[in-house]
Amino acid sequence: MSQNATTAVYTVSGMTCGHCVKSVTEEVSALAGVQAVDVELATGKVTVTSTTPLAEKDVEAAVDEAGYTLVH
Amino acid sequence: MSQNATTAVYTVSGMTCGHCVKSVTEEVSALAGVQAVDVELATGKVTVTSTTPLAEKDVEAAVDEAGYTLVH
Repeated sequence: MSQNATTAVYTVSGMTCGHCVKSVTEEVSALAGVQAVDVELATGKVTVTSTTPLAEKDVEAAVDEAGYTLVH
Repeated sequence: MSQNATTAVYTVSGMTCGHCVKSVTEEVSALAGVQAVDVELATGKVTVTSTTPLAEKDVEAAVDEAGYTLVH
């Protein structure tokens, strides 16, 4: 396990229930280097810990794949 | 396929997205005799077609299993 990690917080709109949270968590977790994903339904905040910084376009693509929208 | 069918309409509360609709559809579809389930997210109306009339308690149990509530 890497000793280095970076954490970034994104905002995702459109999530309404636990199923939505699960979908976003699964898609973002599948990105290369991601170690942890924490989604807060009430606020749409998605906290991602990864071995190296992620490209926002990759996170956006994962969120899109789950069926939701990354807020810029 | 049976030539006889009965249709009943129920109301389910708590569904907020397509995943919720899918969960309810799957659980109610698993009840014995069910031929078709149509869920309308906006209204919570669940239309069930079955070979014989269903016991409301069975429908309620299926909806509970999916994580939602049958409105009486």
